Parts: sequence; C-alpha cells; structure tokens
Amino acid sequence: MQRKQHLFIPGPTPVPPEVAAAMTRPVIGHRGSDYASLQRYLTEKVQQVFQTKNDLFILTSSGTGAMEAAVTSSLNPGDKVLALITGQFGQRFAAIAERCGAEVERMEFPWGEAVDIEKVRARLEHGPQLEAVLVTHNETSTGVVNDVAAVGALVKDTPTLLLVDAVSSMGAMDIRTDEWGVDFMATSSQKAFMLPPGLAFLSVSPKGWRKVEKVSPRSFYFDLTAWRESGVKGFSPWTPNVSLLFGLEKALDLMFTEGLEQVWARHRRWARGVRAGLRAMGLELVAEDKWASPTVTAAYIPDGQADALRAAVKRDFGLCLAGGKGKLAGSIIRMSHMGYVDDLEILGALAVLELGLKQLGYPVKLGAGVAQAQAQFIEEV
Amino acid sequence: MQRKQHLFIPGPTPVPPEVAAAMTRPVIGHRGSDYASLQRYLTEKVQQVFQTKNDLFILTSSGTGAMEAAVTSSLNPGDKVLALITGQFGQRFAAIAERCGAEVERMEFPWGEAVDIEKVRARLEHGPQLEAVLVTHNETSTGVVNDVAAVGALVKDTPTLLLVDAVSSMGAMDIRTDEWGVDFMATSSQKAFMLPPGLAFLSVSPKGWRKVEKVSPRSFYFDLTAWRESGVKGFSPWTPNVSLLFGLEKALDLMFTEGLEQVWARHRRWARGVRAGLRAMGLELVAEDKWASPTVTAAYIPDGQADALRAAVKRDFGLCLAGGKGKLAGSIIRMSHMGYVDDLEILGALAVLELGLKQLGYPVKLGAGVAQAQAQFIEEV
Repeated sequence: MQRKQHLFIPGPTPVPPEVAAAMTRPVIGHRGSDYASLQRYLTEKVQQVFQTKNDLFILTSSGTGAMEAAVTSSLNPGDKVLALITGQFGQRFAAIAERCGAEVERMEFPWGEAVDIEKVRARLEHGPQLEAVLVTHNETSTGVVNDVAAVGALVKDTPTLLLVDAVSSMGAMDIRTDEWGVDFMATSSQKAFMLPPGLAFLSVSPKGWRKVEKVSPRSFYFDLTAWRESGVKGFSPWTPNVSLLFGLEKALDLMFTEGLEQVWARHRRWARGVRAGLRAMGLELVAEDKWASPTVTAAYIPDGQADALRAAVKRDFGLCLAGGKGKLAGSIIRMSHMGYVDDLEILGALAVLELGLKQLGYPVKLGAGVAQAQAQFIEEV
Repeated sequence: MQRKQHLFIPGPTPVPPEVAAAMTRPVIGHRGSDYASLQRYLTEKVQQVFQTKNDLFILTSSGTGAMEAAVTSSLNPGDKVLALITGQFGQRFAAIAERCGAEVERMEFPWGEAVDIEKVRARLEHGPQLEAVLVTHNETSTGVVNDVAAVGALVKDTPTLLLVDAVSSMGAMDIRTDEWGVDFMATSSQKAFMLPPGLAFLSVSPKGWRKVEKVSPRSFYFDLTAWRESGVKGFSPWTPNVSLLFGLEKALDLMFTEGLEQVWARHRRWARGVRAGLRAMGLELVAEDKWASPTVTAAYIPDGQADALRAAVKRDFGLCLAGGKGKLAGSIIRMSHMGYVDDLEILGALAVLELGLKQLGYPVKLGAGVAQAQAQFIEEV
C-alpha cells in the first residue's frame, strides 16, 4: 500500500499545512463587515500578484468559470474573436467563446510550440476587425509559455480586447497584467496559489468594462456587472467559498513573505533542473527551452507506455504525474514543479520516475537524471 | 528561504495529515465513559503492537518518562542492576537507574557494536545476583539493534527483571514482549507511531508487578500502582493528553490497515536502501549490517564536518538530519527512515545529502548514492 500521494500534476498542487489549518477556521457569514474586510484585503493582495490596478474578482468556481465569466460578459453572439491555440487549453478557451455564440477564428500552432507573433500581427493588420483575442499564457497541456506581452502590444491601442488564461502561471511567473494590456486575466486557486481547487481570480480593465456595458449578460452567476456591484461594497454577489478565502489569506502571506521575485525564480530553477533530469533519462521534451514553462514540463514516452508509466509510479511510489491531453493523449507525461514543493521532493520524484522507466524496460541508467537535476540545483543554490 | 522541513531525524518523525486532523477534534473530559472506552481500545491496540498480554499504560510523558516509571517503580535504592550500554541511550537508562539509587553495574560495548551476549551470559552466571538488567533495543545514537530475545532468554526464568527501552524500534520491528520475557517495555509516540511527542507506552509483566509491590514508590507521577488502579477502570491517574490519544487512534488505524508485518518490512527495506546509498557516497557506516537498525542509520563524516553538513542541508534544502551524541558528537550524521516517509522522500533526501557533501568539498559523484538506493528499492518493489 502506498500511503502518500505526491502531487506532481499541474494542479491541484500540494497545500501547505498552514493553509489547510487556516481553512479549518469557523466559517463566518458573508454579509457582515468581517467578511467585507477580508474580501477587500484579499482582493488587493491578489491585484498585487496580478500586477494590476484593474478591478479584480474572487469567484467561487474553477478557472474555467473565470474564463467563462470573461467571455460571456464581454462578447455578444456573432462577435468575431481570434483564438490563439497552442494546445488543449487554448481549445477550451475557443470552445467557451463558441458556446457564447461568438464567431471564433482559430489560429492553431503546432502543439509544443508557442504562438508565432508575426502570424498574429499579420492577421490583425490585414484581416477583418476583431472584438477580442483569446490567448493561453501557460499552455498546461504542452508546457509552453506564450508571449502575452507581445500579443498585448498588438492590441492594446486598438478596440480589440485581450482575454488571457493564466491559470497555470499566475503567481509563479512575472505577469504584468496592466503593462501588457490584458483586459481580462483569469487564474485559479489550485496551482501556484497553493490552495485546493474552488476559487478563481479575474481582473477586468476599464476597456473591458466599456465592452461589458454593451453586452446583454447570458449568465446569471458569471454576470460581471453583478460582481462589480457587490464588489465595491466588499461582497460577493453569490455565496462565496469562505474557507478557501481563509486559506487564501494564509497562502498570500506565504507568497509575500517569501517575495514574489523569489517565488518566480524558484519556479524557473525547478524547470531547468527537471528538464535537465528528464533529458538525461533519454526523454525528448515537448517544448523547446526558449518557450519552456517554469511550472510544468512535458516529455514524450516512446512505445505508447506513457500511461502505463504513470500508473506504475503512482501505484508503487505515490508519484502522481499528468498524462497527455487531446492529440498528445497516451504519448507524453507531464510533471509539474509548481507551488508547495521543493528540491528534495523534485529530486525524489525524478529518482522514482527513473525506477518506473526501468521497470517498464526503458534503457535508463539509475541516478543519471537525478544527477543532472542536482547539477542544475547546486549551481543555483 | 526553505519552506518545508523534511524530518529525517530519528524522532520526531513526520505526522500523517489524517493524524494531525484527528488531533483537532474537540477535547473531551477524561473522567467520563467516552474517555474510558477510548483508553481501553487504544490500550488493547498498543498491546497488539507490543505483542503482549501484560498490562500496558499510556503515559503523558516522553519515552524517558516511561523508562523512569519502569525503573522507579521496580527498583529500591541499593538494588543491583546491570546496564548493557551500546551508546548514548544506554547511558541514559543507567543514569535513570542511578538517580533512583540503584547500584548500577555498567557493561559497556564499543559504540557501533551490539551487546555481546556471551559477556552478559558470563556475568549472569558468575557475578552477584542482579535485580534487573537494562537494555536498549534499538540504540538510536549508533543505529544498532541489540538482541533482546537473547538477553531475555538469559533472565526470564530467573528472579532478575528485564527492562527494555524500545523507544526507536517499537512499531517498526517485530518485537515480542512476552515471548522474549520483557518485564518492562517502554516506547514513545514520536517515532514509528507517527505521532507528535508527548505520549509514552509502558508494559509491565506479572513478574514485574511482583517486584513493584515490594518497592516503596519514589515518584508520585510515575507510581505504576496508581496507573494500574486507574487503568483497570479505563482511566489515567493524572490528566492525559487527550488530543494525542485521538491522534493515536488514527495512527494505529493506519498501522493496522497496512499490516504490522508490512510496516516492519518497509523499514528493513528502507534501511537497506539508505545503507547502500550512503556507502556509495563513500561514507563509512557506524553499524555493521549484521546488527543494523531498520529505523536509523549513522554514518561517519570525515574531517569534522558532520555538523556543517547538517547545517548546510537544513539551510538549503530543509533536510533535517541528526548529529552524533556523546563520544560521536561532531563526527557522524544520523538519518532516520522511520514512520510516515516513503521511497520518493528517502531518495530525495539522499540526493540532497549528495549535494551537501559536494558543497563541502567531498569527492561525491552526483547521483551515485541515489542509484544504489534505487537499485535496492527496485529489487524489492
């Protein structure tokens, strides 16, 4: 019997015990002044993580809910939107826009590659006017970071809105919501924020609001005008997940005590170690270094044994890895290095992965991947 | 900033979150029937771990308290006792007996070696009559297991009592309290029982009780006749640590669900992996394989850098190792592999130890120790 689960999936990530303990505080009513003080405080801190002065909402939903809130509040049926798709989560963003009745133009890039900014530029310069561009900042299905700053530079001085899914990067990377001109920025609680799932965060720019005011809301729960109306008074329009807010208070405290720049640096460092380690095991990585994610690394497992490998390391060692999604299903593993983990656990996970590969007959030299990750870590201690 | 502490010290060991959660249950009064049911249940389960039908007490104290309870209840001033000493905790047992006024005869063995049974046999056969023999089952300061069964065989059919300190082995090893003829068997909560410190367990044989009844108690708190009197009614004579009892209930549940034999096997397996790993780092082990502890391994660190190494891996990686005690202070590290840890964490700890050795200038090949531990683990998955 394996007794522990080591979460190296790209969300949910491990929850610090201090955060779990904070969540056991007795629930308070969500229409009183204690609640309003808490929500105001948390909103301001999350705005700092977002590097934004825009309005920010803490939704009781998953990240997908925040994406739907952005889309459904800012797009009318028939609106033309450009979806920049580099993997499964880019597909999902497009699907949400389609469900809202938008006319979605998909610009797809090979999985494992980032958005080609020149193609986007050409489309924006020469094609029909767009109401919005949708982009995934950190494509969790491939481990690729897209250059949202560059996309933002193309649209910020135009009427076109920029909607960004930063679910698996916000908090772990230097993300400049305002400087980059992001009108709707969405993320969720169970990634770099080190919380269980259940909360999402969404910022809305003044430019975004101007469009929202022209849209007739399709959703009741995700109608951002309702969130704004309650938010100015320190409240949520519908019942919020109060326990997760208690946890968020503690998680933000941990993040700010460490320092956001230190948090970002440690994610970059982990990615370098994991990438060196996986390569030394003879695995080909899905993403090139130039656009590699600091929070999740995907690697091909030859001979169709990716899911067998994941099952083996979970069963024998409690190591939880993610598999491929969509067109990469069954052919890759994805290992997260995000949030509340550390060098010791990452090195242990790599050692266990070597054991799993060995068990399945791959020609891996025990300790070789660990050694390369160690070499990365020791240079940067 | 290192955010996690990985406890690889030989106690306290990591506490499972289920156990920590159980400890947050509201405290109950300790003079009611709910409490009595709980104490009776826990006593019976701990007796199963001890493999004893003797009376067993759950003391609110450390393991040292249980050792004092045994000694102070069973020895009169001037009683002759033989203390078998293989390390620091054997010294402590002797010191407790001396504090009680016993006339302590120390039989010392080289640190890193086990009790030489032939010497004990010779002393018992030829020397003056003894009231008791004191022995440490698992000498935590050196990582050596003493053959308590063999000592027991020498005294069980004599009037001499056998007092055993099993603080760092009970629960992790096959310990047969009754079969071995142990009159007083002591252990504590923060080792293989996976609890925080604060509880100790002590069993008393009928032969032990006969002596207790002839001793005028020196201690009030540790007077075992008071514990027996309350114990038959399901109570503790003085206020017990109720929260730890809630935790103990859950910890025992985890141990019995896994199966005691499986628990013992995994500790043996870990010891083999850690010993292979440390040797591959070029380190000399304090204990030979033939008496190596399944719960803690001690290794020499040359050039007086043992404590610098411990400080480095704690500071940079959150890896907590123990140092040398007594005559081994400053010259060894001690790594526990006990309780709520797993292969992934042990391999990670070995990887981090390699990094620490490298940083201090030792000629360690990165990944080499991990590889040898992996090889042990993969053979025995």
